[in-house]
Amino acid sequence: MTPHSVGELVEPQGPGAVTPHPRLSINQGTIKHADLATALRATTDAGVQAIGLWREPVQEVGLATAAKMLADSGLRFSTHCRSGFFTMPEGPARRASIDDNLLAIEEAATLAAAGAPGSHAVLVLVAGGLPDGSRDLIGARERVRDAIGELAPHAQAAGVTLSLEPLHPMYATDRCVVSTLGQALDIAADFAPEVVGVTVDTFHIFWDPDVLASITRAGREGRIATYQVCDWKTPLPADVLLGRHYPGDGVIDFGPMTETVIASGYDRDIEVEIFNEQVWATEPLEAVRRTAAGFARAVSPYLRA
Amino acid sequence: MTPHSVGELVEPQGPGAVTPHPRLSINQGTIKHADLATALRATTDAGVQAIGLWREPVQEVGLATAAKMLADSGLRFSTHCRSGFFTMPEGPARRASIDDNLLAIEEAATLAAAGAPGSHAVLVLVAGGLPDGSRDLIGARERVRDAIGELAPHAQAAGVTLSLEPLHPMYATDRCVVSTLGQALDIAADFAPEVVGVTVDTFHIFWDPDVLASITRAGREGRIATYQVCDWKTPLPADVLLGRHYPGDGVIDFGPMTETVIASGYDRDIEVEIFNEQVWATEPLEAVRRTAAGFARAVSPYLRA
Repeated sequence: MTPHSVGELVEPQGPGAVTPHPRLSINQGTIKHADLATALRATTDAGVQAIGLWREPVQEVGLATAAKMLADSGLRFSTHCRSGFFTMPEGPARRASIDDNLLAIEEAATLAAAGAPGSHAVLVLVAGGLPDGSRDLIGARERVRDAIGELAPHAQAAGVTLSLEPLHPMYATDRCVVSTLGQALDIAADFAPEVVGVTVDTFHIFWDPDVLASITRAGREGRIATYQVCDWKTPLPADVLLGRHYPGDGVIDFGPMTETVIASGYDRDIEVEIFNEQVWATEPLEAVRRTAAGFARAVSPYLRA
Repeated sequence: MTPHSVGELVEPQGPGAVTPHPRLSINQGTIKHADLATALRATTDAGVQAIGLWREPVQEVGLATAAKMLADSGLRFSTHCRSGFFTMPEGPARRASIDDNLLAIEEAATLAAAGAPGSHAVLVLVAGGLPDGSRDLIGARERVRDAIGELAPHAQAAGVTLSLEPLHPMYATDRCVVSTLGQALDIAADFAPEVVGVTVDTFHIFWDPDVLASITRAGREGRIATYQVCDWKTPLPADVLLGRHYPGDGVIDFGPMTETVIASGYDRDIEVEIFNEQVWATEPLEAVRRTAAGFARAVSPYLRA
């Protein structure tokens, strides 16, 4: 990470800045190059009330320190991002992954306890892609189910919800063999909803002809652990991981999905998570303000007061 | 197009060349820079028995001449590629699209009649993306259904099957709002199966957790108008349209999909359609031979004799 210094952030809120929606949460991935102190400061300075943290910047300062910093910030904690990556067959690599996931569960529990009231102990899980040399998507998916089965008792004991995230099908083989919300719900169905939920991320699922039905099902089954928004537009960048945009800058219609999420009873914070070189190159406070502005324009209209 | 001259193709079949599977068909998109004469010659010289043609090289020589050339080649005609692109609202652009689709229907009928016995009058349809400035995927999908409703009587009169092709979800907004085989089947369901079928293309649908169930459904409903194979691997190229590979060069497991297609009763030719700058830069006969070799390795083992 290339941290921006905290000092850079001390500037008055410009006249064009919007008052952020009270349910907006900044996912730290949006300001990837900010260290934890800078991320917390940019979020509070912009008037945003919640944050989703990433593991690397938390580990950079250590969990206890991170929890103290989060508590001092007064921010709610919405998710911990991310672990998972457990599609490999049994062996040392799989054991290392499971151990790392257990650590992530502990981190999520500790940080949620340190966050302001309204925080949630949600750990986002990205399944992982095909193991090297494998073409067996079906087997990889079975190993995702197995791994969650192994982690679930630990998550339950820690009061943490494992939030399985379907990723766009363009990542199916190299990053996440779970590609649709329906598929994630089918995997989650074996477990209690407070232990295994799903991440509903507009970027990954908006294209799905079944998306609204799947969101409705997720709500009915009590599985929406976090709702995340960002936009899609084409052409995709050379690295297709980095094609996420401020809400409103692309072609996603946030209305139907957001209204369906809210109608399902979802009452938590809504994260904006953007992976985009240009956004990452923006000074963090400015990136947070732009995020809040995009959210106000493209998402807030669909949130009941 | 940058045509390779026909003369370049006169060379003996090398010792490493395989005898192509009798059901292999070369989709002309695989040798995009070959003109029609070169494409037909490369296909026959390689010992392949069938070809799927593209509209532009057919129109380059004129339909009557193309039909004569195809008849003289002795090849079976497996599909005509492609039309569609009818997601825009009513107006002159939509009328122009419908007119062009009517022309494509006529082309498909004429070419299928000119091909060797076992030819099929199949016209592949790609729906099109979001109209400029629109975020309304649902509306665009409805307009696909409307367009097919308008074209279906003409296709039926001409004895042509409109073969709706779901494209990978990464193309959902800029190229094809039909993203899954199940969705294509839902649209086709309003029409007779000999009039509206579906294109089953491994590249576009292999990631779908429902892919085998959807292929089974497509077979049961008599809708598999063409089965097309090519491979997927990552990282995707900068232009994600061009990430298609020879069968066996990527991570798709062709076994389960191919066996399910065959078990459904599909008895037509199987096309290989590859969009890939490197393949396009290969001398056409060599590209056809490599295609046949990949097919022999990755697909033929799953075809009953």
